[in-house]
Amino acid sequence: MEKEIRIIEVKRSIFENNDRDADRLRAELKEKRVFLLNLMSSPGSGKTATLLALAKALEGRIRMGVMEADIDSAVDAEAMAAAGVKTIQIHTGGMCHLDADMTRQGLYEFGLEEAELIVLENVGNLVCPAEFDTGAVKNMTILSVPEGDDKPLKYPLMYEKCDLLVVNKIDVLPYFDFDREKVERYARQRNPGIEILYISAKTGEGVEALADWIVQQAQAWRE
Amino acid sequence: MEKEIRIIEVKRSIFENNDRDADRLRAELKEKRVFLLNLMSSPGSGKTATLLALAKALEGRIRMGVMEADIDSAVDAEAMAAAGVKTIQIHTGGMCHLDADMTRQGLYEFGLEEAELIVLENVGNLVCPAEFDTGAVKNMTILSVPEGDDKPLKYPLMYEKCDLLVVNKIDVLPYFDFDREKVERYARQRNPGIEILYISAKTGEGVEALADWIVQQAQAWRE
Repeated sequence: MEKEIRIIEVKRSIFENNDRDADRLRAELKEKRVFLLNLMSSPGSGKTATLLALAKALEGRIRMGVMEADIDSAVDAEAMAAAGVKTIQIHTGGMCHLDADMTRQGLYEFGLEEAELIVLENVGNLVCPAEFDTGAVKNMTILSVPEGDDKPLKYPLMYEKCDLLVVNKIDVLPYFDFDREKVERYARQRNPGIEILYISAKTGEGVEALADWIVQQAQAWRE
Repeated sequence: MEKEIRIIEVKRSIFENNDRDADRLRAELKEKRVFLLNLMSSPGSGKTATLLALAKALEGRIRMGVMEADIDSAVDAEAMAAAGVKTIQIHTGGMCHLDADMTRQGLYEFGLEEAELIVLENVGNLVCPAEFDTGAVKNMTILSVPEGDDKPLKYPLMYEKCDLLVVNKIDVLPYFDFDREKVERYARQRNPGIEILYISAKTGEGVEALADWIVQQAQAWRE
């Protein structure tokens, strides 16, 4: 599959004010009616598995494309492309996050003309990606059950910045000490307005509700 | 417990050359016969649970102290202190890693005179901590089974920099697609000399062998 995937080596931003640049990018996305969703999580929380499940659930409802940001490999982009999703791979050259200009470089290569929904799969990292506005319309974070219910206490900025928390791998809830009440309380301490959904990307449980949330957000943005 | 934990707010390094500064710190540790182990992983891989299991396994063999680096909270330090381990909390003020000078600030507060083994629990992050030499004698990374066997492909620098890979949460191997042969092959592609141990911090399986590894490394350093 590898030869079919376009790999973009993004460069460090030349803009000093990333927040202003992110606002400019959002304005352009609004004009072109493209909904950009920034997806963040720890390594191994199931970002790619969730996108693969969403690709099925969103089929016929909205045209989804994916930008996979990775330090080096193209493992996730190959999996997405194999599932028939239009995908490009963004290489950050060792950097731990994407800023708005790096996101723009990816979007322009992706092509904004025919896209309705583009998901940016950010670098697997709970710290740095939360510090940089990518220009996305909404931010979503995945927390997987095995990581534990205390993550909002330890990585507060991630939870402050996100509109949606998706708790993934609920199929293994019986094997871990994970308290739904606690995770909701901790997440809302950081961000009272955060929405919370529970899914298993593996079994498909809860994925329809996540697909509905995304379609609603994208429709509201594209109106 | 919180009032008993000393919290150190470390400051950004003033040294331009972190590698040289890390070598200076190692030389000082050698002179003082202190073995510093830098422990890195994703959020939720089980760093603290592993240290709690090690505290028991190392009792009577070597005096262990812990420096917990966190962006903001003191959750892990409280757990360690409750288990009777001498612990200090290092707050990075939002920073995603520790460098050698930040580590030194923590070590001096901890006190080097009576320590034999100090474990630095780095910020939960597979990207940035690998880029900065902390001055530790050895580096160890934990990969938990639920994160998946492909992590060495995606976070290559972490595996290049580590002397030991500990695969944790082997008690849940039956519930995840995790291939030991693959993870070993991928890790050794990045670092042919890396040692690999399998444990469950929860059940205690494999913890003795990890304790042995640490004691051997510490003895060799302190001779």
